[in-house]
Amino acid sequence: MNEVVLYDYWRSSASYRVRIALNLLGLDYRTVPINLLDGAHRMPDYLALNPQGLVPTLVIDGKTLTQSLAIIEYLAELRPECGLLPSDSADRQKVRALAYAIAMDIHPICNLHVVSHLLTLTEKADAREEWMKHFIADGLRRVEAMIGEADGKFSFGDRPAMADLCLVPQLYNARRWGVDITCFSRITDIDARCAELPAFQAAHPDRVKP
Amino acid sequence: MNEVVLYDYWRSSASYRVRIALNLLGLDYRTVPINLLDGAHRMPDYLALNPQGLVPTLVIDGKTLTQSLAIIEYLAELRPECGLLPSDSADRQKVRALAYAIAMDIHPICNLHVVSHLLTLTEKADAREEWMKHFIADGLRRVEAMIGEADGKFSFGDRPAMADLCLVPQLYNARRWGVDITCFSRITDIDARCAELPAFQAAHPDRVKP
Repeated sequence: MNEVVLYDYWRSSASYRVRIALNLLGLDYRTVPINLLDGAHRMPDYLALNPQGLVPTLVIDGKTLTQSLAIIEYLAELRPECGLLPSDSADRQKVRALAYAIAMDIHPICNLHVVSHLLTLTEKADAREEWMKHFIADGLRRVEAMIGEADGKFSFGDRPAMADLCLVPQLYNARRWGVDITCFSRITDIDARCAELPAFQAAHPDRVKP
Repeated sequence: MNEVVLYDYWRSSASYRVRIALNLLGLDYRTVPINLLDGAHRMPDYLALNPQGLVPTLVIDGKTLTQSLAIIEYLAELRPECGLLPSDSADRQKVRALAYAIAMDIHPICNLHVVSHLLTLTEKADAREEWMKHFIADGLRRVEAMIGEADGKFSFGDRPAMADLCLVPQLYNARRWGVDITCFSRITDIDARCAELPAFQAAHPDRVKP
């Protein structure tokens, strides 16, 4: 296998998901930091790799892959034994639904460029914080309801899967914005269990911050 | 196979995607309308099926499935010969990335409940229209760039796949909000080609409106 290269921003939830996936697969990779605050994602060289101008981008097997969950699906198919997705079709459906409840229904609404645009439309001084707290708390409440009384150690079953790769970065983000997550006992338990695993630890923003 | 039941809202992009998928597979299904304007999605009976309180929900093979793209992945695995996803892993990655560029990076930001919340934070009379136009146009511009010079008849290759199931409802939505899409020649071509297919025609909101 050729060198694996991750174009990454340390604080991006989408990058964080892919770092965890690469670590769970035990793949060595080199990181190229793309500083979103500097506009590095809008430079022509980077847009040639990632026409959306987003992070992450993964170069692997001579291919340039974009979109964190599409990358994780690719990695899941590359190493099915690592369990990023379960082997049963109906189980995979559940893991994907949980992942999307975070990656589609929470994360994009709270993205940097969305909130920047919000601030052009409002005079309210605390609009950014209010927006983050509202959508993160509301979305996590629904995720907690989806997991329900399932008693696995992780979001689905007893090993970490794609849904957990979305959950952990979202909870990091929730804490950053001061969202009260103590009422979500299932997801905070799962998060704590993930935090014990080296693959999650090594991917944490504090560990990869330039 | 038991009866297939789709809990559906005629104007929901996510429901529209799943209707196209079911039609492409040639599956007969019964529709149960869930009127989002009436709050039917927040009723206890519906929340028991879909704890997120979103549409669509699909009952198939005795299973209750939520999240449109997770449903489509399930249907793609059920009938791989229908081509909702390509057979090659790297090709599947590309189709998923395109689908997510719409379903993650455009659609959630423009969802009904997001824009309703926006309106509580702004005094601007045209904030809703401005928001829709800004994010739909910006997102579609990036999708057009992703498709780039690929010369397939559809978003990826020569048969409709999951990305097209996201694109067509998003363009319906773009027209509804008066977004100028004439500058996006690749995606409007693809949309026109999809519009010729019975599976897409039968799923159109105007055809399923109660």
